[in-house]
Amino acid sequence: MPPLSPAPVISRRDLTPLFDPVSIAVVGASNDPAKYGNWLASRALAGSRPAYLVNKTRASVLGRRAYPTLADVGEPVDLVLIAVPAAGFYDALDEAINAQVKAVVAVTAGLGEAGERERLRQEAVVRRLREAGISLLGPNCLGVLDHTTGLDATVNDFPSGSISIISQSGNVAIDVAGHFSGLGLGVARFASLGNCADLDVSDLIDSCVDHGGTEAIGVYCEGFQDGRKFAHAAARAAEAGKPVVLLSVGRGAASARGAASHTGSMVTSGVVLDAVCEATGTELVSSPNEMANLLQALVRTNPLTGRRVAVLADGGGHASLAGDSLEDAGLQVEEFSPEMQTQVAAELPPTAAVSNPIDIAGGGEQDITCFSRVARRLMESPEIDAVLMTGYFGGYSHYDIAVAPAEIQQGHDIGALAAETGASFVVQTMFADSEPAAALRESGVAVYRNVEDATWALERLARRVPRAVGRVPSLPPAAAPLTETGYWPARRTLLDIGIPFVPAAEVADIRELRSAAEQLSFPLVLKALGDEHKSDRGGVVVGIKDRYELEQTWADFQHRLEPPTCSVEQMADLSDGVELILGIRQDAAFGPIVLAGIGGVYTELLKDTRCALGPISTETAKNVLLSLRGAALLTGYRGRPAVDVDSAARLLSDLSVFAAEHPEIGELECNPVAVTPRGVVALDARLILSR
Amino acid sequence: MPPLSPAPVISRRDLTPLFDPVSIAVVGASNDPAKYGNWLASRALAGSRPAYLVNKTRASVLGRRAYPTLADVGEPVDLVLIAVPAAGFYDALDEAINAQVKAVVAVTAGLGEAGERERLRQEAVVRRLREAGISLLGPNCLGVLDHTTGLDATVNDFPSGSISIISQSGNVAIDVAGHFSGLGLGVARFASLGNCADLDVSDLIDSCVDHGGTEAIGVYCEGFQDGRKFAHAAARAAEAGKPVVLLSVGRGAASARGAASHTGSMVTSGVVLDAVCEATGTELVSSPNEMANLLQALVRTNPLTGRRVAVLADGGGHASLAGDSLEDAGLQVEEFSPEMQTQVAAELPPTAAVSNPIDIAGGGEQDITCFSRVARRLMESPEIDAVLMTGYFGGYSHYDIAVAPAEIQQGHDIGALAAETGASFVVQTMFADSEPAAALRESGVAVYRNVEDATWALERLARRVPRAVGRVPSLPPAAAPLTETGYWPARRTLLDIGIPFVPAAEVADIRELRSAAEQLSFPLVLKALGDEHKSDRGGVVVGIKDRYELEQTWADFQHRLEPPTCSVEQMADLSDGVELILGIRQDAAFGPIVLAGIGGVYTELLKDTRCALGPISTETAKNVLLSLRGAALLTGYRGRPAVDVDSAARLLSDLSVFAAEHPEIGELECNPVAVTPRGVVALDARLILSR
Repeated sequence: MPPLSPAPVISRRDLTPLFDPVSIAVVGASNDPAKYGNWLASRALAGSRPAYLVNKTRASVLGRRAYPTLADVGEPVDLVLIAVPAAGFYDALDEAINAQVKAVVAVTAGLGEAGERERLRQEAVVRRLREAGISLLGPNCLGVLDHTTGLDATVNDFPSGSISIISQSGNVAIDVAGHFSGLGLGVARFASLGNCADLDVSDLIDSCVDHGGTEAIGVYCEGFQDGRKFAHAAARAAEAGKPVVLLSVGRGAASARGAASHTGSMVTSGVVLDAVCEATGTELVSSPNEMANLLQALVRTNPLTGRRVAVLADGGGHASLAGDSLEDAGLQVEEFSPEMQTQVAAELPPTAAVSNPIDIAGGGEQDITCFSRVARRLMESPEIDAVLMTGYFGGYSHYDIAVAPAEIQQGHDIGALAAETGASFVVQTMFADSEPAAALRESGVAVYRNVEDATWALERLARRVPRAVGRVPSLPPAAAPLTETGYWPARRTLLDIGIPFVPAAEVADIRELRSAAEQLSFPLVLKALGDEHKSDRGGVVVGIKDRYELEQTWADFQHRLEPPTCSVEQMADLSDGVELILGIRQDAAFGPIVLAGIGGVYTELLKDTRCALGPISTETAKNVLLSLRGAALLTGYRGRPAVDVDSAARLLSDLSVFAAEHPEIGELECNPVAVTPRGVVALDARLILSR
Repeated sequence: MPPLSPAPVISRRDLTPLFDPVSIAVVGASNDPAKYGNWLASRALAGSRPAYLVNKTRASVLGRRAYPTLADVGEPVDLVLIAVPAAGFYDALDEAINAQVKAVVAVTAGLGEAGERERLRQEAVVRRLREAGISLLGPNCLGVLDHTTGLDATVNDFPSGSISIISQSGNVAIDVAGHFSGLGLGVARFASLGNCADLDVSDLIDSCVDHGGTEAIGVYCEGFQDGRKFAHAAARAAEAGKPVVLLSVGRGAASARGAASHTGSMVTSGVVLDAVCEATGTELVSSPNEMANLLQALVRTNPLTGRRVAVLADGGGHASLAGDSLEDAGLQVEEFSPEMQTQVAAELPPTAAVSNPIDIAGGGEQDITCFSRVARRLMESPEIDAVLMTGYFGGYSHYDIAVAPAEIQQGHDIGALAAETGASFVVQTMFADSEPAAALRESGVAVYRNVEDATWALERLARRVPRAVGRVPSLPPAAAPLTETGYWPARRTLLDIGIPFVPAAEVADIRELRSAAEQLSFPLVLKALGDEHKSDRGGVVVGIKDRYELEQTWADFQHRLEPPTCSVEQMADLSDGVELILGIRQDAAFGPIVLAGIGGVYTELLKDTRCALGPISTETAKNVLLSLRGAALLTGYRGRPAVDVDSAARLLSDLSVFAAEHPEIGELECNPVAVTPRGVVALDARLILSR
């Protein structure tokens, strides 16, 4: 089993000068209200810290004294914001280094993202900054903000709160913040990543983990330079109870094209991100709306310990809609026990439905406190794991303004009950902007406008339950690199590390073929070697029944394919077995990614594959295999016997460790692997070196 | 092929007195501001029609004269709103009949939904109303509204517009209307269904189809009394170019429990609704939010003729997010041709990405008109079928208020371009509440806050392209009912109508077995009859190789199962075939529903089944089979031969016509059916009678 590294050897950066500087200077401060240098200067001056404006040509900016260079300021400066055009950028950095500043935020664009020559120049300067102990955010970024220290060194407004946002796109951060406003959420810190010439997403996550004002972290990132560093930072955040919600792109070809021209970075493919998020306890989402919805649930809702949800609705329509939505999402809406139904009925009018979903059927109009009374029964019940309140709450005051104080009080009371009981409680209401809804949020209850958003968020919380966090596997030291590729060398290498293969022999002529066939028993398989695509070109024939057929096939291969050698192999009995595809793909940023799938004719049709961040233990490998949609084929299904999943898991784990020791491997795949009740055996192998 | 009925024999109701009455009376008008009788009376008085208030005990209500009975009014009354308690309901109805009113809206609850006795009483009165030519909406409903005639006989506010809402739940209608407000949509008519004692959802759809002010129809309905009537009404709406968006429940057990206690009606299961919506061109959605989002697209966006979408983004993040979202939804975001890229680049700064997704990269700040210039290029291009504009539009005025008029003008210009070119154009913007966004909407462009909502709506529009509308199959006249159930009678009956089965014989003793075996060739199959669950109890043995094995199996069956008879059958060669499950289920409301799926071990694991409203033609049956996820197994895949899909389709069509002629059939299933390159043959059959 590969070791896990609880404390990776990563030196964390002290980002205090970035988020809580003693003093600020704006280089490129401007009077032009259409320029970043103007916006940054205005906000710097509005803050409580000493702020100095630097402008080469003007003696005053925004009515304040401006200095021609940073050196002229004559006071110590912690943080420098650079907003000059690209042509003046490196001079401004030189000044910053000479002035012994501690952090730089560079808004300037047209640098490292503008081509290879610029990228190399940027790299050279970053080395000098690091030597001088100066942190750089950007260039090509939109600044930094920390509501907990009163720092506003950015150009957009973010509501104040407890969630830190780290984003490679300013617009996406604004989009997320727009959702926050609607949900009563706010930002603790905001950092715009830009080109990540120095500080990268992992440094910023690490800093937020150590930041008392951060409860959760939202990350928008299109590509990862050092994937393993990100994995360790994300896992550390999860372990610290500060969930990371990651919004990324690159699932399709179009977004990859888009991201390449956006930041010049390669996107990380969806399958790799799935594996990384699974390993690190990171929540992967696909839109700003999803990010905000999930963050709301994470910071407000108590964790779920199971999937049984009670629906508390005012109105039969919303009761049924919520029931369907929850079941669609994979949650359970089970009928209450008779005792529970009696308890609920005791709080409601006789027309109420009390079996789950509950429909209070006019109970709210009669006495608004029935919400908290029923909620308490549900929260205290051992029969359920979460409650979804849905429908009209927040709207009772619309009809009768006299109800308003009581309805608002209900919001507070229900929030207090959830806190007291530790219950998972979320709300959908069509009056999500009402004061009672605000009261629920203030009291720590997640409130959604749409039932599908509420049930989606609940399901995401439920999915967190069984997941181990912080399990980023260490990479073993590299072994002597492989040099040979192709099936037979791969087979030999894998046999050496204990991967079982069917008996076979590599044969170069008809005599070797005959002699090899005598050591094996029919039916046999003959494969023409020397071509990675042997199967597609008719270079693999299975089910060869006798010596005559074998030699006919041999002759046919010689005629059509002229292979340098062939492989003659025992044919595996698959009548009570399952074919698997087990393999590893090396990701440029994240290293070995383990892939497992059901093989055979259904593989491509049904796309039933799972992945994991490698290397993985046998235990994790087993979990991967058992999480396939077709896992029932492995554990016995409709009278079929269970197959030897443990051996298949060991094979997959061994492959993953081997690939981790050989970073020169681009792809390593055993396809198919036959797993039967009697064990596991690989029937073919493919190895591609990437360097 | 079963005939299609273009003009079903349904007599449509004239609902003019309901939606455009000459005069109104409110029976149960009240001064109590917490009562329906108060709200309805206030609104009736505020309208321009003569309105009369009826109250048994008070001479004046709301400062107006009140009459003790309807007869006392002394003027002709078209529409009566009844808001008295249940105890007085039937007296009020008697009065209405005597006063020769033309329509009744009954808000009163506690009637037909309150139990069997009440339901029967309700039915009896409806017969009397129908004899008198009076339409009844409700009881237990929340009224009716028609903005096009100025009628407000309900208790909630709905924004005015062109969409009619027919709902079994008042709260769900309010929820939908809340979404409308945010999207700049409005209601033409609203009708609350209540118990549907007389008028049902189909009558109201029919009336809206003939209503000039209705562009599209949103329906919330939990259960259908006469499913075929609904299908004809919905198909007629689709044919008239007034799309019906249906929100329903009942996909899960919880919502079925909920709906049963809500309106006392049985919900229609999800699989049946899928089939009905497919046949009628109805759009099935699962939440109020989805309903509003789809209706926005349907009334504002030109139809799509394909799936190729161009992304026009301001910001790389939103460009990539949109690309992924579109591809996730099953739409295509293909790279533009070099010519197209050159055209787009001509309108944008050099830093822009122009390959698709387009990122205008600061072009908006430089010149806001680049949006409409690029939009025109895209709308006029034959390379794409739709455009998604995404990101920041609407927010430029935030930074520079001087831009506002130009940005609003862009909204109008883009709307005019879409109208002029007939292009499908939708917008996502994080400034969905801005004036430029409102300008887009006013000019007929669908605008969404969330990219996933925009791409979901686009995909739903794209899905409408290949769908035939108005194809509700007629039910053939009923044949002489079947009385026998069980495998062998079903087999005989199906053989009679031409369904091919493997050669087989029913045998009662060992002599018959031996004699039958002589007519067949090994391998054989032996089935113990007399038990519907023969397979689960070990009563089916396949692959019997010789006479010895056959007689051993026979003896074993006699010992374990004591079957009255057995079936001995030729075993089908499935080596180059596919197993299918083909069957019909009779739905209480909708009649025969056709089901088809890939059989064998993957059936239950992968749930790859499709359904259709029966009876179906061979052509439709083929489309059903080819729409299975595993359809590639039928058409040839990875070197496997294509199988005889036409014969399988004919078998399915024949089954569906047979089931339609036999409404006494509850379930009829051939499972498995073997389809090979050489034809099709059923290997088993199951027939269950429902009455």
